[in-house]
Amino acid sequence: MHFVTTCNCSLLTGMGVELHCRCIMTESKPIGRHIEKVELIPPNSHCEETEIIATLKRTGEKVCLNPEAPWVKKVINKIMSKLSRSS
Amino acid sequence: MHFVTTCNCSLLTGMGVELHCRCIMTESKPIGRHIEKVELIPPNSHCEETEIIATLKRTGEKVCLNPEAPWVKKVINKIMSKLSRSS
Repeated sequence: MHFVTTCNCSLLTGMGVELHCRCIMTESKPIGRHIEKVELIPPNSHCEETEIIATLKRTGEKVCLNPEAPWVKKVINKIMSKLSRSS
Repeated sequence: MHFVTTCNCSLLTGMGVELHCRCIMTESKPIGRHIEKVELIPPNSHCEETEIIATLKRTGEKVCLNPEAPWVKKVINKIMSKLSRSS
């Protein structure tokens, strides 16, 4: 299964300082079950977009998700809803 | 301003493979405005807890947040609500 690795990895290496949006394209296929964790990056001075970057379980690959896609919102809501159940 | 840096950084370095929960303690003070991004880590085989790790704007420090804290849920909802406004 091939995922669109669409993170712009030309970060300012080492400094971990992102000077622009990190996502160029986003993965359209629902890949919720492959996701190990999700990073939510609100708009900031370098990028006007909210960006959501998933790390995949098996490969550790980073994949940009479409913040508008219903399945993405479902993934995040599911993680957040686990909060109440796991407490 | 001092934050409780409570991420367990003795990860399997280099491999980026977390073999246990990453958060030992969580930051109780509402620090929403200091947050650059948020990482949501659902329960997995190594950690039964949902973990939420924030990266701070100024220092890039990683701080564990209490998934149960209302202000934390507010931060995440705010990021997600920006999706609809920024589209």
